[in-house]
Amino acid sequence: MTALSPTAAGAHGQDVVVLSTGDVRVPVHPADSAVRVRRADQHYRAPAGDPDLRSLIARYATSSKDAVVPSADQILVAPGARQALVAVLRAVLGERREVLFATPYWASYPHLVELVGGVPVPVPGRVGEGTLDLDAWEARRTPDTGAVIVNSPRNPDGAVIDRDSLRALVEWAGRHGLVVICDEVYRGVALGGRPAPSVRDVFPELPEHCVVVDGLSKSHALAGLRFGWAIAPAGIRARAVAVASHLIGNTSGLVQDAAAVVLADPEPERQRIGAELTSNLDMAMKVLDTVEGLVCPRPQGGIFLFPDIRPLLSGLEQEARRAPAVWLKDRHRVAVVDGAAFGAPGHLRLSFALPAEQLATGLERLRQALTTV
Amino acid sequence: MTALSPTAAGAHGQDVVVLSTGDVRVPVHPADSAVRVRRADQHYRAPAGDPDLRSLIARYATSSKDAVVPSADQILVAPGARQALVAVLRAVLGERREVLFATPYWASYPHLVELVGGVPVPVPGRVGEGTLDLDAWEARRTPDTGAVIVNSPRNPDGAVIDRDSLRALVEWAGRHGLVVICDEVYRGVALGGRPAPSVRDVFPELPEHCVVVDGLSKSHALAGLRFGWAIAPAGIRARAVAVASHLIGNTSGLVQDAAAVVLADPEPERQRIGAELTSNLDMAMKVLDTVEGLVCPRPQGGIFLFPDIRPLLSGLEQEARRAPAVWLKDRHRVAVVDGAAFGAPGHLRLSFALPAEQLATGLERLRQALTTV
Repeated sequence: MTALSPTAAGAHGQDVVVLSTGDVRVPVHPADSAVRVRRADQHYRAPAGDPDLRSLIARYATSSKDAVVPSADQILVAPGARQALVAVLRAVLGERREVLFATPYWASYPHLVELVGGVPVPVPGRVGEGTLDLDAWEARRTPDTGAVIVNSPRNPDGAVIDRDSLRALVEWAGRHGLVVICDEVYRGVALGGRPAPSVRDVFPELPEHCVVVDGLSKSHALAGLRFGWAIAPAGIRARAVAVASHLIGNTSGLVQDAAAVVLADPEPERQRIGAELTSNLDMAMKVLDTVEGLVCPRPQGGIFLFPDIRPLLSGLEQEARRAPAVWLKDRHRVAVVDGAAFGAPGHLRLSFALPAEQLATGLERLRQALTTV
Repeated sequence: MTALSPTAAGAHGQDVVVLSTGDVRVPVHPADSAVRVRRADQHYRAPAGDPDLRSLIARYATSSKDAVVPSADQILVAPGARQALVAVLRAVLGERREVLFATPYWASYPHLVELVGGVPVPVPGRVGEGTLDLDAWEARRTPDTGAVIVNSPRNPDGAVIDRDSLRALVEWAGRHGLVVICDEVYRGVALGGRPAPSVRDVFPELPEHCVVVDGLSKSHALAGLRFGWAIAPAGIRARAVAVASHLIGNTSGLVQDAAAVVLADPEPERQRIGAELTSNLDMAMKVLDTVEGLVCPRPQGGIFLFPDIRPLLSGLEQEARRAPAVWLKDRHRVAVVDGAAFGAPGHLRLSFALPAEQLATGLERLRQALTTV
């Protein structure tokens, strides 16, 4: 097991003189406002994150009346949800190193699983459909399977897993000693209607084999802040904090202070962003509906559209069939991500979280590219 | 090989409409000062770091007239030097997974090497002595050795590797196809006298198998900012950026902006901090000199003292012999780190980068604990 970094070893008695630190603590940064930022950042923060900030996260992460507010001691703060995910993966993968996740999947899952010595195992799923086919998961499970990742709402296709599927998956995983990591980073995007079910709505007390990963990047349009977290039961959380103490050290004090400001009153901003995204999505669906042959189920969450262009491919020039994203960019000046990155070739991922005019221009170019053949 | 995260895929043509983004870009954050921070952080930054900031790093990292200013394209920005190290380790470890480093070593090396699937191999060295015994390194080299880490000035003992040793190690590594990762994060601490030699002084053009890791945490007392970097030749750097694009995403915009302010005029602050640390070190050495039997070579760099208490152990009570750091904290109210964390049991690591009064109180408690027996 990974030990906690010795410098991070935490609280000492009140009267203890601490010579065990690893950061420079001589009082060198004057207090005037020009260097305020630097004073705030002279010290290492706790590897798990500031306690007050973790309490704010606990409250924010419990919007549903079904879920129980977690303890601040169940939370690990990280510089982005992906780093929380890495710390958790490293914490839960022991001898059994295979990690299951459905296709289409977030492009970084295979890389992050491999980074910590795991083996990524995609489970075939259907684009635009959140219902989990447990037989498909069971068919991929081996004695070496250690964990599963579920992402709802899902990047790239906005599919949402319903409560029954979520419950069945968690129970199935529990029977086989698998850890379930629920990546809910798109759940906070307020597209209207009820938010996607969280595993914490289905199981108000987080089961011992479940972890939730979330952050502010999507819900609050703060991707560049790099702020995320994991909510985990005590055992997994302790191991994840130990990993984080080595891998991350701690999350920047500047970033934590900014996140605390956002989380003190998160709803107005979140709703405002959600309303604008919903309006963008409505507009985008209207344009895509005019492209004959294109299949694009309306995303139930998230910030991406994931149209299937396979029905159109036979009518397109060879260059488009071979590398559609390259062709669209080079020939039609619109940049999208090839579905192959998500385990779903023949699809395109396009963001609708853009200024409306830019989105409209891009969609129009896409429409022309796919219809003028 | 790790592929670059598709969202991070970088520069598009000027006229390309970009729908491939993964961050929310609707213009939601108003421009008034209260939310300035959040506007600055709405977008993902480039995985390698802002180009202008990388140019500032290149200049800062080349204080010696012997070294050639690296290209901004040789630099990878990371949220802390340890994350730069992880990205580089992951980038350079292929089939050959053993990583050599001398004892005493930074406590996180074994954990970070294991995190990316490597095998840590400590090479016995002498506390307080930077001269590298190449025979000892050669004795640990196997067909599975892929890289070596050298840390100068060294955490925990402040030992500095001289130019001849550095040259010999780099040449030896080159002959055997090993990558040399030079952790120079303590090199910027201005303790007076000439700074420790950098591998970039010895080899003005960074050799193809060498990487330098550094940051602002120690030199500028900005540990809580979490800002570091790697300087690497093109091939290694490209792979490390790809790893970082998945592991880190990118370094917080807030943090990069703050680092740019510091790096625009880094010397006054660095010299001021260094002068205070030097004064602290002088004071600490005087106190430690009064403890009979204690062996503590004066550190040539860094922020730590690493006294050898083994000559005193036989005279101490059993509790002190079994777990000296615990005994010192519980019985004498002074917190230090046990040398065992650095592969050197029987030593204590104490920081002198503290307010002078706190340091004096702690040293006095240590002196009393070790002399009243």
